[in-house]
Amino acid sequence: MPPTAAQLQQQFIQLRENKIFETFVILVIVISALMIGAKTYPIPTSVAQILRLLDIGITIFFLVEIIIRMIAEHSLKRFFSKAWNVFDFLIVTASLIPVDDSEAALLGRLLRVFRVLRLVSIIPELRVLLNAFVTAIPRMGYVSLLMFIIFYIYAAIGSMFFHQINPELWGNITIAMLTLFRIATFEDWTDVMYETMEIFPLSWFFYLSFIFIVAFVFLNMMIGIVLETLQREHEEFARESGEGEAGEVHRIDSRTAEMEQRLIKMENMLEQLTRDRAAADKP
Amino acid sequence: MPPTAAQLQQQFIQLRENKIFETFVILVIVISALMIGAKTYPIPTSVAQILRLLDIGITIFFLVEIIIRMIAEHSLKRFFSKAWNVFDFLIVTASLIPVDDSEAALLGRLLRVFRVLRLVSIIPELRVLLNAFVTAIPRMGYVSLLMFIIFYIYAAIGSMFFHQINPELWGNITIAMLTLFRIATFEDWTDVMYETMEIFPLSWFFYLSFIFIVAFVFLNMMIGIVLETLQREHEEFARESGEGEAGEVHRIDSRTAEMEQRLIKMENMLEQLTRDRAAADKP
Amino acid sequence: MPPTAAQLQQQFIQLRENKIFETFVILVIVISALMIGAKTYPIPTSVAQILRLLDIGITIFFLVEIIIRMIAEHSLKRFFSKAWNVFDFLIVTASLIPVDDSEAALLGRLLRVFRVLRLVSIIPELRVLLNAFVTAIPRMGYVSLLMFIIFYIYAAIGSMFFHQINPELWGNITIAMLTLFRIATFEDWTDVMYETMEIFPLSWFFYLSFIFIVAFVFLNMMIGIVLETLQREHEEFARESGEGEAGEVHRIDSRTAEMEQRLIKMENMLEQLTRDRAAADKP
Amino acid sequence: MPPTAAQLQQQFIQLRENKIFETFVILVIVISALMIGAKTYPIPTSVAQILRLLDIGITIFFLVEIIIRMIAEHSLKRFFSKAWNVFDFLIVTASLIPVDDSEAALLGRLLRVFRVLRLVSIIPELRVLLNAFVTAIPRMGYVSLLMFIIFYIYAAIGSMFFHQINPELWGNITIAMLTLFRIATFEDWTDVMYETMEIFPLSWFFYLSFIFIVAFVFLNMMIGIVLETLQREHEEFARESGEGEAGEVHRIDSRTAEMEQRLIKMENMLEQLTRDRAAADKP
Repeated sequence: MPPTAAQLQQQFIQLRENKIFETFVILVIVISALMIGAKTYPIPTSVAQILRLLDIGITIFFLVEIIIRMIAEHSLKRFFSKAWNVFDFLIVTASLIPVDDSEAALLGRLLRVFRVLRLVSIIPELRVLLNAFVTAIPRMGYVSLLMFIIFYIYAAIGSMFFHQINPELWGNITIAMLTLFRIATFEDWTDVMYETMEIFPLSWFFYLSFIFIVAFVFLNMMIGIVLETLQREHEEFARESGEGEAGEVHRIDSRTAEMEQRLIKMENMLEQLTRDRAAADKP
Repeated sequence: MPPTAAQLQQQFIQLRENKIFETFVILVIVISALMIGAKTYPIPTSVAQILRLLDIGITIFFLVEIIIRMIAEHSLKRFFSKAWNVFDFLIVTASLIPVDDSEAALLGRLLRVFRVLRLVSIIPELRVLLNAFVTAIPRMGYVSLLMFIIFYIYAAIGSMFFHQINPELWGNITIAMLTLFRIATFEDWTDVMYETMEIFPLSWFFYLSFIFIVAFVFLNMMIGIVLETLQREHEEFARESGEGEAGEVHRIDSRTAEMEQRLIKMENMLEQLTRDRAAADKP
Repeated sequence: MPPTAAQLQQQFIQLRENKIFETFVILVIVISALMIGAKTYPIPTSVAQILRLLDIGITIFFLVEIIIRMIAEHSLKRFFSKAWNVFDFLIVTASLIPVDDSEAALLGRLLRVFRVLRLVSIIPELRVLLNAFVTAIPRMGYVSLLMFIIFYIYAAIGSMFFHQINPELWGNITIAMLTLFRIATFEDWTDVMYETMEIFPLSWFFYLSFIFIVAFVFLNMMIGIVLETLQREHEEFARESGEGEAGEVHRIDSRTAEMEQRLIKMENMLEQLTRDRAAADKP
Repeated sequence: MPPTAAQLQQQFIQLRENKIFETFVILVIVISALMIGAKTYPIPTSVAQILRLLDIGITIFFLVEIIIRMIAEHSLKRFFSKAWNVFDFLIVTASLIPVDDSEAALLGRLLRVFRVLRLVSIIPELRVLLNAFVTAIPRMGYVSLLMFIIFYIYAAIGSMFFHQINPELWGNITIAMLTLFRIATFEDWTDVMYETMEIFPLSWFFYLSFIFIVAFVFLNMMIGIVLETLQREHEEFARESGEGEAGEVHRIDSRTAEMEQRLIKMENMLEQLTRDRAAADKP
């Protein structure tokens, strides 16, 4: 008797959660990565033949694996609602392009490279790292914009004054921005400077001011990120441990306030008792 | 019936605060920036003609916009009391210099580049960043002075000993300082060193000591800035949240002191009562 | 009368703990290090002869010293249970290979270099530093893996597209990874870029994206390490000093709770007394 | 009537503390610094004559100024007990060497350069910075030693294997250490590597491991300094502000303990009173 659809799905879910299966998937990804590396070496035809077969095998395996996960997820909508599933799906379908076709061969090989990224999607710790990576991008938005404006202004001035001195470095604003990025990495920046200083002897001010401003903005950016991360950690820490001491202090505060009221009341009663006794003793 | 001056001013204030108008100003600035970039490419005469007209349009638009903001501000004195307004005013009036005049063409084009900085003055987040930038300058004053003294001493020694070896690098103290800045960025610094080591074999000590001192002072500067920023954040944080716990502890302190006084008083009364009762029971 | 084995062992333990002996061992290590340095200079045969004799002397001294420590440790098992002893043992036995034998001469000299590392194992402060070094390696495991994946993908793409442009830089995936490491250190990276931009004008995107990603991941790694170190220090600090304030607050919390119960009880008794007296007065 | 010695000394103390005099000293130092810079330019004989006279004037002024400070300090022993005074004294006496003597001319000029350092000794803020600089040196002692050991081992291995490939870079251990420092600054390090990789194809491991280790130790060093500075600031902060909250909590702790004893005593008395009354009511 063949298994019913429900039974099959149940088996697929079990398979997906299986640790051995996961390890096997990681192994296949690593083999796929090694194959990509191997192809950059000159290889004999016989080995190339084996690699081609292996590549087909891996492609089919990835296809089967993602279909299993799709079925195990009950609905396609639910499957695609997770960003990492979409990520895997794109990588797997992209590598369906055949590598033998001379036309699309390079594209096919390029897309196969991204299979290595499936390592990131399958290992939870790497997933956390990449998430941190992606969430940090908007955080640096305005600083990046400021940096871009600085580059743009300097590139405009640079290509305005220096484009006749060396068109390869300052020919237009795009090339000039690339040259400025090179200067920001200190890569042979003095060669660029000495060249323009022959015509404009004061152009060192252009380069030095650029380096100082970029270094300063970059430093601020780094400090900003460090501070924000520290603050987030602090808040988390305060939420966890702060409940301890801060909560206790708060409790002590309200309790002593209550105790004081009670003491005032008791004091009055005692004073009354003392007065009464004094009155009782007198007569 | 034409609008009165007061009505016009009211309309201008509304216009200035209008989000759509602000977005439109940003758009014009971006177009102005793109034009500056476009001019660095070889462009056909017809396009150049259009760009020239567009430039006149943008110049007039900026002029009208700043006049609107001046009128909306009620008085010129109040308008110029804000640094950012002065900043905008200078950029706008500077770009009134015509670009067609062959004499001042380059200057005119240069001044137009600074229009891109209006992006900084109009986007509040960038304004905050630039403010932080400017306020940080004096903070680093003494470290910069120390750095300058170190550069000056090394440049004096360098040009004293090495000016005959390579006048282009060590000819006078200004050139020597530029060479030292190059060494501080590690840009081909060994070429400079190997050249002087042929005459003075121990001159490596000059370079290494310079690199160590500059790296160390720079590191201190960085740490100083980070610490100061951290401290400022801490103080702010303490002022905000500290009022909570620290305030409560202070309240508890004075309250328990008061409670203790009350308890001492009550204890005395109780002792009196006990003694009285003992005396009453005895006879 | 010759000393018994137990007496000898006792003397060895005393010797091992002797400060003067330790200083002497450090001195021998430093001499050994200087000899290694001396051999890199051209030396006359007579001096070479002396150095050879000195080397034999040092080798024997180290052998004797480690045997003393072995005996002082009571059992070989206990001796080898300490990682630093294994470290020393390997260095000492490795340098038993004779340097005169032309075949193994280079290997023998190489192994003698590692004797300098015995400085690390004998000075406790350096031992702490190296321990910190080793314990930090796994901490960076996943970030290193992510970094490796990024390098691997870029190397695969690079060698796929650029291997015909410059096989020395992009010939296969291993060479390409070395080239990418060079780019990550900003070492003449523009030369590499300009070469490929002649064929693929948009290849600057390949380099810039790589630099940004690597810089970003590296920055994250640094911040991660700093934060983790800070957190560890904080926890230690909290465990030490926190017992002070946090412990006191906790004690105050439970004590005031107890006091409140006591006050409630006393209040009830006082009320009873007041009522009784009122009842006693009435009739 | 000529002033007595005591009166003179009093005047000197007043002079030394005078703000205008201090500013004048700073001015003279700056002029002295500018003269040093001016001498690196080709100057006409007449100006050189003026500079020579000015130099004599400045030398005498500094001599007089330090004698005034010596007299104002009451005793020479007390004067030399301050490190900054010794510092100034050395700089001033060193520049007494005449610059005209062709023999010692270069030395004389060199010693005059260090006069600029008097700016550091006279401006308090710079003095603080230099103090921090000097106190930080021992703090990094062991890390520097570890770094030196790493450099030494790598230099020994490098000069052992590569000295025949390029004696200018790996000729002996000193040159090899300089080459390694160059590699640590990423300055044309790939040229060095590619050269040795032709003979030893696996020598990339030598360079990469060196870069990783040095970068890691350097990173640790930086973090160590930052952490220590932070900790010091924290302790200072805790000593200042902590007395507030921590002191209050401590006071509350002992006070509530006392209050509890008092309450127990009062409770017993109240119970006694209640029992007595019950006994009094019964019969």
